[in-house]
Amino acid sequence: MSPPLTLHVPVADRGYDIHIGHGLLADASTLASQLPVGKLAIVTNTRVGLLYTSALQTAIRSAREGASAIEIVLPDGEQHKTLATVERIFDVLVANRFARDDTLLALGGGVVGDICGFAAACYQRGISFMQIPTTLLAQVDSSVGGKTGVNHPGGKNLIGAFHQPIRVIADTATLSSLPRRELQAGIAEVIKYGMICDADFFAWLEAHISAVMALEPDAVAYAVHRCCAIKAEIVSRDEREQGDRALLNLGHTFGHAIETVTGYRSWLHGEAVGVGLAMAATVSTEAGWMMASERDRVLKLLEKAGLRTRVQNEVTPAAAREAMALDKKVKSGRQRLILMRGIGKSFITADFPVSALDTALEAHLS
Amino acid sequence: MSPPLTLHVPVADRGYDIHIGHGLLADASTLASQLPVGKLAIVTNTRVGLLYTSALQTAIRSAREGASAIEIVLPDGEQHKTLATVERIFDVLVANRFARDDTLLALGGGVVGDICGFAAACYQRGISFMQIPTTLLAQVDSSVGGKTGVNHPGGKNLIGAFHQPIRVIADTATLSSLPRRELQAGIAEVIKYGMICDADFFAWLEAHISAVMALEPDAVAYAVHRCCAIKAEIVSRDEREQGDRALLNLGHTFGHAIETVTGYRSWLHGEAVGVGLAMAATVSTEAGWMMASERDRVLKLLEKAGLRTRVQNEVTPAAAREAMALDKKVKSGRQRLILMRGIGKSFITADFPVSALDTALEAHLS
Repeated sequence: MSPPLTLHVPVADRGYDIHIGHGLLADASTLASQLPVGKLAIVTNTRVGLLYTSALQTAIRSAREGASAIEIVLPDGEQHKTLATVERIFDVLVANRFARDDTLLALGGGVVGDICGFAAACYQRGISFMQIPTTLLAQVDSSVGGKTGVNHPGGKNLIGAFHQPIRVIADTATLSSLPRRELQAGIAEVIKYGMICDADFFAWLEAHISAVMALEPDAVAYAVHRCCAIKAEIVSRDEREQGDRALLNLGHTFGHAIETVTGYRSWLHGEAVGVGLAMAATVSTEAGWMMASERDRVLKLLEKAGLRTRVQNEVTPAAAREAMALDKKVKSGRQRLILMRGIGKSFITADFPVSALDTALEAHLS
Repeated sequence: MSPPLTLHVPVADRGYDIHIGHGLLADASTLASQLPVGKLAIVTNTRVGLLYTSALQTAIRSAREGASAIEIVLPDGEQHKTLATVERIFDVLVANRFARDDTLLALGGGVVGDICGFAAACYQRGISFMQIPTTLLAQVDSSVGGKTGVNHPGGKNLIGAFHQPIRVIADTATLSSLPRRELQAGIAEVIKYGMICDADFFAWLEAHISAVMALEPDAVAYAVHRCCAIKAEIVSRDEREQGDRALLNLGHTFGHAIETVTGYRSWLHGEAVGVGLAMAATVSTEAGWMMASERDRVLKLLEKAGLRTRVQNEVTPAAAREAMALDKKVKSGRQRLILMRGIGKSFITADFPVSALDTALEAHLS
């Protein structure tokens, strides 16, 4: 086994380390090197908890003699990402007299991480939490950057806080328990990072996408590390999302429109983002900013990863347009899009030819 | 009318101004000088809203032509300081499509400010809010420092966030609508600031307490300004409450014990703090750290302000001891107290003679 990769994320006065490697959960040494002193609570869900809680408890016990964590098991699924679920966590923390120097461990995917992180942000005005992401999407995206929160009936992630974890342990071995579809959905976000600002990484993915999909440990660890490094770099430049951080939403305006129109049921977030990336490439090409050959490389890589690049009979261009009008990036009524001047050269603009957008909507949706 | 006093609070990258003066609400110029550009929502309660919302709306209209604020009127009382009330605010903000550059205006006492500030901290991961405190307690305490939050059935202020206002407008004219008891309770916190670190201010209060109690504008504005300056200085040294900020809790360990034992019904917070300040003086004197003559000055000033310095037939020393054991300042089972080496010379210690505490409990409680 290769040694774990470590990445330091410098965020204001509260930098933290991300450890990435195959089998980190079963190996207590990474956990032991920085286990906090107070009480611990594992926040997980019914599905992930069953798979990994006992390994984590074993690691905690061997890291600190006699130690153990209480377990808070949430129901599985985005529909439980609500303030009511956070309130349940508060109840357990109060009942167990958790105080300021105690720590929550978020064991699971992005939903668990977002809920747990928000609970940690608000309990006693902020206690520590550690991210132990078990999905590819969470490892490359939601566990970096400090965004936490829950949904409101009026919109996703409307209630939340910026709260940085004290560290992240990304065990790539956990990805083998992911359903194939979820793995593919995560790959969409991986490809996104190359498209945003790293043409070399995009080219590496073109050469190694099969190894990543086959979960070859070194390839996966490299990809996760690269994504986290890119995201960390962007986030540390713009923690509060005033500028560059918006680039991380490449493909997301379109992706969210697909999710909204289809009622967040049939499409996984990453799957919708995959189509969104293809659409961003098409708009960029139609606008004359990106070569058609580069757009084709984007489509090909997405397809090699098993992702769709168009939606059939589910989302009309008109419905997508309406959904996009509600996007958070709309400022003073003007639609803003994240587009590219080539692979790895993304930028945000409100000044694009409307015909380019129309062409992309027609080409990718029906 | 004297011109308003302005105090700048330097908190990390987000400093803000506090404006203090008689009649600031009715005078649009202070509000106009920095009215934010987006949508506005006044968050208030049934009692305060009735008194001041229309003046605030008038000031907003004359500050920015055609502008007005939506109004979110909460039920009055600490029992509504809950997550459920915050959720109601979220619902209204979503329904009115509030976005990141919109602003909440907290118009009311500490309860309104705490709830509104917490809603602002979490809505879309943080939007701006302005404090317009209408009680003495809120003007000298809760509107400075960025603490926001709500209660949990398991304890006060257990759920919250640090979120700084973009500015504070403290109109001392609003204090004339306060019930006498609430004014006195606020004075306890005013006296506290002198005892913590400002013997000169304490001496000024000894000379001017009647003018303050009579709400003479210049005296009140000076007192509020002095308190805010002291709090701001301590808070900017220690925003996240790791060290010196604990000094602001002088008298509060005892005060909370009185509130807890009496079920938060018969005693106002400031009234309980008044007794707590007297008790802190007695422990300090019994421990040999403070002269008896200084303790007597503390008791005399509290009494001149109409505050009680002992509890009769409501809280036994044993009941207070039990309540104190649950205090947040207890670390590793060791009680810590904020005591004084004289007026204006407070410090925090876990190393005090138990007999001094016992004597104070017996002297002030029954």
